[in-house]
Amino acid sequence: MLQNRRLLDVLNGQSVDRPPVWLMRQAGRYLPEYNATRAKAGSFMALCKNAELATEVVLQPLERFPLDAAILFSDILTVPDAMGLGLDFQQGEGPVFARPLQDEVAVKALAVPDMSSLRYVFDAVSTMRKALAGRVPLIGFSGSPFTLACYMVQGRSEEGFPQLRQMMYRRPDLLEHIISVNTEAVVQYLTEQVKAGAQALMLFDTWGGLLSAHDYQRWSLEPMRQIIARLPKEHEGERIPVILFTKGGGTWLKSMAASGVQGIGLDWTVDVSWAREQVGESLCLQGNLDPQLLFGSHQAIDEAVDRLAKAVRGTQHIINLGHGIQPGTPIEAVAHFVKQIQEKTMGSVAKVNERTKVRSRSAAVL
Amino acid sequence: MLQNRRLLDVLNGQSVDRPPVWLMRQAGRYLPEYNATRAKAGSFMALCKNAELATEVVLQPLERFPLDAAILFSDILTVPDAMGLGLDFQQGEGPVFARPLQDEVAVKALAVPDMSSLRYVFDAVSTMRKALAGRVPLIGFSGSPFTLACYMVQGRSEEGFPQLRQMMYRRPDLLEHIISVNTEAVVQYLTEQVKAGAQALMLFDTWGGLLSAHDYQRWSLEPMRQIIARLPKEHEGERIPVILFTKGGGTWLKSMAASGVQGIGLDWTVDVSWAREQVGESLCLQGNLDPQLLFGSHQAIDEAVDRLAKAVRGTQHIINLGHGIQPGTPIEAVAHFVKQIQEKTMGSVAKVNERTKVRSRSAAVL
Repeated sequence: MLQNRRLLDVLNGQSVDRPPVWLMRQAGRYLPEYNATRAKAGSFMALCKNAELATEVVLQPLERFPLDAAILFSDILTVPDAMGLGLDFQQGEGPVFARPLQDEVAVKALAVPDMSSLRYVFDAVSTMRKALAGRVPLIGFSGSPFTLACYMVQGRSEEGFPQLRQMMYRRPDLLEHIISVNTEAVVQYLTEQVKAGAQALMLFDTWGGLLSAHDYQRWSLEPMRQIIARLPKEHEGERIPVILFTKGGGTWLKSMAASGVQGIGLDWTVDVSWAREQVGESLCLQGNLDPQLLFGSHQAIDEAVDRLAKAVRGTQHIINLGHGIQPGTPIEAVAHFVKQIQEKTMGSVAKVNERTKVRSRSAAVL
Repeated sequence: MLQNRRLLDVLNGQSVDRPPVWLMRQAGRYLPEYNATRAKAGSFMALCKNAELATEVVLQPLERFPLDAAILFSDILTVPDAMGLGLDFQQGEGPVFARPLQDEVAVKALAVPDMSSLRYVFDAVSTMRKALAGRVPLIGFSGSPFTLACYMVQGRSEEGFPQLRQMMYRRPDLLEHIISVNTEAVVQYLTEQVKAGAQALMLFDTWGGLLSAHDYQRWSLEPMRQIIARLPKEHEGERIPVILFTKGGGTWLKSMAASGVQGIGLDWTVDVSWAREQVGESLCLQGNLDPQLLFGSHQAIDEAVDRLAKAVRGTQHIINLGHGIQPGTPIEAVAHFVKQIQEKTMGSVAKVNERTKVRSRSAAVL
C-alpha cells in the first residue's frame, strides 16, 4: 500500500496537497554514505549490479530529506552493454564502449538483447520496491533510443557527438537500424521494470537537444512516441505514468506534449510559466532549478524557490532540478531547498482545484 | 559604394531579390589557404593582430563562394585580453586566461580598457573594409558581456562554466561589477568598429543559453539591451543594424525581439517557422543549418536546403549555419550548399513584398 501518492496523483491529474519533490541523481556522489557504499561495491557498474547495495543507495537520500519519490539506481547504458558493446566506466572519463558501432558490419549485427541479460536491473527494481515498503513510489527509467545511439556510435561522451550526427546525414539507413533496435529494446526493458515493480517511468533523452527541430521529430521524438504507445498502461490496478525529458528541448514542448506522456521534464533554461503556456493544462511538468543554484547562498536559493513556487501554483507540477544534482553539492543546501519549496508550495495545488471548481460553476451559470 | 546590399537591406526591412548568405567562421580552418596564412602569421592571435594577413583570410571565402557578407576576423576574447587577463591559445585547448577573475581583489581591479589597446582590431576593420572595396558589407562583432564573463571567471572554456554560475549564486555583487565593466567596454569596442568601417554588428552570446530564463534576462539580455541602445544608429548616412545570437536561447526569442535589435541569430535546434511565429514579422532572422550537415550526403544537404528555403519564403531572413562551420568540412559541400540555397530562394523575398502590397491594398479597400 503506497503511503505517499503525491507523484502518481499529480501525474494522473489528481488533487494533491502540494507538488511532489524529488531530485535527479538524488542517490549520488554528493552524499558521503553513497560514496561509502560505492567503495564497498568496488565500482559504479558493480554497484548497479548488486541489488542489495543499489537498494541501499536508493534509500539514503530518503533518510536525509522528505522526498516524495525514489528512482531506480542504474545507468542508461545498461541496454547497449547488454547488446554486447562492452560498457566500462573509466576514471574521470565517464562511460566508454569497447566496441562502438563504427562500421556497417557492427551496425548490421546489432540486435535486441535477451532481457535475461538485464535481469540484474529487474532484480534491483524488485529489491528496491520491497525495501521502500510503500513509503514513496519507485520510478524506473531508460535512455531514449536516440540518446543511447549517441553513445553507441561515438563510443563515449563527446561534445556534440559529431560521429552520430555525421552518420545521420551520411548513412541514415544505418542510424535507422540502430534506432529501431533501441526502440524495441527500450519497450521490453521498461515493460520488465514495470513487471518488477516500477510505478512510474522516465525516458531520459539527454542528447535529443543536439538535433535540429526536424531531426528531433524523426530521430528522437517519434521513437519515444512509439515506446510510450507500447508500454503497459497499468500494472496491478495502478496506472503507470511516463515522464519524458529532452534536455535542451524547450522549443519542442508542444510536440512532446502530443507524444502520449503524462509528464514532461524541463531543463533549467526553460521558464516554467512559458512552458505551461506551450503545453496547456492537461499534463504535468517537472523541474527545473539550476543544479548549480545549490552551491549558492540561502538568499539565492530562497529567491529561486519563491519564483518556482509562484510559477507552479495551481498547476500539475513535480518539483525537481533541471539536471542531475552535482557532486560536491552541500548537503545542507539540499535540505534547505527541499524544506523551503515544500513549505512555499503547501496547498498550492488544492487551491487550483478550488479555482477549477469556481470556473466550472461560472461555466454552468453561463 | 556598396555593390551587394542584400545583408543591409534585409536587416533594414527593404526588398531583396533573395536572402543574403554568409557562414559563421567562413574564414576558418576548413580552408587550406586559411591554414597557410595562419602558419605565416605564426599563431591565431598573431593572425588577429596582423591587419594585412587578417584581411587576406577575410577575402578567402569570398573568392571561393558567392557570399553576401564578410565578417571581421578576430576573437571575442580580445576585450578581456585588453583588460589585462592575459589571453593565450594553447594547442588543442582553446583560449586560456593567465589571470582569470578568481577572487574579489581581481574582480574589483577590473576596469574598462583604453580602446587604444584594441587599436589592432580597428586597424584590421579599416584594412578589411578598404580591401572589400564595396563588394559586400563588413560585419563587426563582439562577445556579449555575459559570455565574456564566462571565460573571464572560469579562465577557459569548461562545460557549463560552473565557477561562473556559482559566483552568480554566491556573489552576485562581483558578477554585477564584471558585467557592468564588460557592458561599457563592449559599447566602446563596437562603436570604434563602426567608426573604422563596420557596416553591421553582431553580438555573440555563445553561453547565455547556460542560464535559467530568469538569469538570462538579468545577466545576459539586459546588458545586451543597454549596449544596443547606446550603439551608433547610423554612420556616414547608413543605418548600422545589429544581430543578436544567443546559442541555446530558442525559448527566449520573444524577449530578444524586444531588445532593439534588427536581427536574431538562430542555432540549428530551432525550427525557423516556429521562431518566426515567436518574433513576428518586423525583424530579421538568421540561420540555421546544422554545421555537421555539411559532412553529409548531397541528398541530405538538398533536403535541408529545401526545408529552409520553404521556411524562409516571404520573410526577412539571412541564410547561415546555426553555429560556426567546423574544421574538416568538405569545401565542395560548402560550394554545393551555397549554390543550392541561392537558387532555391531566388525571388522568395520579392514575392513577399508583393504579398504585403496586396494586403495593404485590401486594407485600403476596407
